[in-house]
Amino acid sequence: MTTTEIIRCAKDASRYVARADTEQKNEALCKMAEALIADTDAIMAANRLDVEAAKGKISDVMIDRLMLSPERIAGMAKGILDAVALPDPVGRVLAETTRQETLRIKKVSVPLGVVAIIYESRPNVTSDAASLAIKSGNACVLRCGKEAHASAEAIVRAIGKGLEAAGLPRDSVVLVEDTSRESATEMMKARGLIDLLIPRGGAGLIRSCVENATVPCIETGTGICHVYVDRDADLDKALKIVNNAKTSRPSVCNAEEVLVVHEDVAAEFLPRLEKLLVDDRKREGMIPVELRCDERSLPYIKSGVAAGERDFDTEFLDYVLAVKTVSSVEEAVAHIGAHSTGHSDAIVTENGANAEYFVQSVDSAAVYVNASTRFTDGGEFGLGCEMGISTQKLHARGPMGLEELTSYKYIITGDGNIR
Amino acid sequence: MTTTEIIRCAKDASRYVARADTEQKNEALCKMAEALIADTDAIMAANRLDVEAAKGKISDVMIDRLMLSPERIAGMAKGILDAVALPDPVGRVLAETTRQETLRIKKVSVPLGVVAIIYESRPNVTSDAASLAIKSGNACVLRCGKEAHASAEAIVRAIGKGLEAAGLPRDSVVLVEDTSRESATEMMKARGLIDLLIPRGGAGLIRSCVENATVPCIETGTGICHVYVDRDADLDKALKIVNNAKTSRPSVCNAEEVLVVHEDVAAEFLPRLEKLLVDDRKREGMIPVELRCDERSLPYIKSGVAAGERDFDTEFLDYVLAVKTVSSVEEAVAHIGAHSTGHSDAIVTENGANAEYFVQSVDSAAVYVNASTRFTDGGEFGLGCEMGISTQKLHARGPMGLEELTSYKYIITGDGNIR
Repeated sequence: MTTTEIIRCAKDASRYVARADTEQKNEALCKMAEALIADTDAIMAANRLDVEAAKGKISDVMIDRLMLSPERIAGMAKGILDAVALPDPVGRVLAETTRQETLRIKKVSVPLGVVAIIYESRPNVTSDAASLAIKSGNACVLRCGKEAHASAEAIVRAIGKGLEAAGLPRDSVVLVEDTSRESATEMMKARGLIDLLIPRGGAGLIRSCVENATVPCIETGTGICHVYVDRDADLDKALKIVNNAKTSRPSVCNAEEVLVVHEDVAAEFLPRLEKLLVDDRKREGMIPVELRCDERSLPYIKSGVAAGERDFDTEFLDYVLAVKTVSSVEEAVAHIGAHSTGHSDAIVTENGANAEYFVQSVDSAAVYVNASTRFTDGGEFGLGCEMGISTQKLHARGPMGLEELTSYKYIITGDGNIR
Repeated sequence: MTTTEIIRCAKDASRYVARADTEQKNEALCKMAEALIADTDAIMAANRLDVEAAKGKISDVMIDRLMLSPERIAGMAKGILDAVALPDPVGRVLAETTRQETLRIKKVSVPLGVVAIIYESRPNVTSDAASLAIKSGNACVLRCGKEAHASAEAIVRAIGKGLEAAGLPRDSVVLVEDTSRESATEMMKARGLIDLLIPRGGAGLIRSCVENATVPCIETGTGICHVYVDRDADLDKALKIVNNAKTSRPSVCNAEEVLVVHEDVAAEFLPRLEKLLVDDRKREGMIPVELRCDERSLPYIKSGVAAGERDFDTEFLDYVLAVKTVSSVEEAVAHIGAHSTGHSDAIVTENGANAEYFVQSVDSAAVYVNASTRFTDGGEFGLGCEMGISTQKLHARGPMGLEELTSYKYIITGDGNIR
């Protein structure tokens, strides 16, 4: 089937998912999880094909992300079941008012309709996205990278069995067959069929969506996250936070990429930081962090290298940290305003006024005071799960949970009322 | 100044508006209203230039919309003052949670930043949009049609004086000088400068935004609104509702354009409707409604004309009503699904199951049971005001009030917390 035909199937199915009540949606999730476990062998076989084909073509890290095991499949099933316990985001009365005594106006949350996702090679995104879409009453169109296509196909087949067992159309979750660039473009242009498109992937994909999409789109993920160590910072806290934000998981979007430090503490802080991120890590056999420094920071870091022009605008996703020294919190905020992707930025300070100024002025989805940027996550923020992290301001900002996959409508009931 | 330079001025100003507290914003609104009254002569003089230039080029209805009087200017000032009483939409705590005992996560509403509007010739939109933007902490970029440019310029000059008197930058509200198509396109592409673009105007403008905009955009206004008269309708209520929805103000987007009627009541209802909309109106010297009927409706309406292919997809904004007969509520819903613009659609019925089915199945911003579609309006819905009526599902749906001009951010305060 063509991509548009596949999307149209999801559109048709969406009317049934939208009308399903909480019980039926939860039953579908349970059956989806069961089917995933039951199909473990088929999914593993498909995944072996993907992994074989990908070897030598993508990095070892990517192969590891792609590779499944029965345990990982069980983990995916568990992820689906986790959505059962979450509150149904559909049918919430968001506002209510009465006019003319008999005219009742209710603002009620409703599903968006068809939610589409373009993602890369992590097979668990397939089941995560499907479960969030179903729980929020939406049909789901998935398009994964070609490296993961066989795996995704097997996962979607299992999910379809689960949906049918719960009385929902199999096409409530569909996978686009074509993995070429054309199918992505077709999705971006599927007006009237796709109600929300979420591109999860590199900057190129997201730029292409912004420029080409005529369907509503939410930009996700790119995170050039900053930690600013203020003159009034508790340097012990700052060391702990920078270490965590940079090294606990450098490949994720909420990891720190840029350290901004106040000139008055640079001479003390930067050598201590180098010891922690470079010397200590080497001694313990871990990968040391490469520190790319601006002119004013370089004298304080023995192992530092001079930062190039692009280093303050790069999402390294690696053991690399750009370092900049500033003269004031205002300069720090201005630098962050010019270089942040609006994901997560932090200040470390004991000065309440500076913290307040930073929180007010930094225009990012998550702004931190004395905590690591790594907390920007649906689970950590109490949403239970997430479909991606929005770096735009319209509709959803930060982690997108179930509520962010809904819209609302006004339902007005009268008794012949006229205006 | 070029359009981009003007937008950049608003962007710079937006940081100050965003930080203004409720008191300062309300003071600015009061001063804006005062300045508008004080500048009445200058605004009237500019308006006379616009009206002179437009004569013979636009319709009398449009001239009337364009023309100001001291009373209308006072009305605009009153509109600005109305926003003072509305609750500040910024700084609301939308959600709150605590992790690790010391990590406080707050989701707080914030201004979008720069809100831009492309509109046509109604001068009051200039002051309405400015007041809603300022109250919600946003800077505002206005681009009106060339017919209204001199008036808008005089209004914006007055507003600027008011803003300055309250200590806010004059550029918090700016008017694009260039009224050519190019300036609209420049606004649609002003990524990083405009946070929300609201096109208010014809279908052509809105289509152009959907296709060309790389800034976040909200589709507004186009209303092909339906009233479905069910088999189980109270026909007296139905007559009252259709009459109101069609004739109380045919030029607005929430007016009815299509009547859908169940076959079992068509023979009784349609002749009574014709009497009300055609014969009675003629007798009373009012413009009669032209009824454009499908094949099954035509036999019941003496004055009816056969509907053409486009009549069920046209926003007439006039004393014209397309009429279609169906065999079931399902057929009515299917027709509405295929032809509605997702603005406002109504069912008239005493049958609870049919009402429920209609409300669930019709995917429009406002869905009515036994009431006129004319209620879709910010004031009627209790929002106090509106910036336009969104027909899309992302971010805002239906009347856009102050809350819809905000985004949110997560503010996380810890004590050295790491993950």
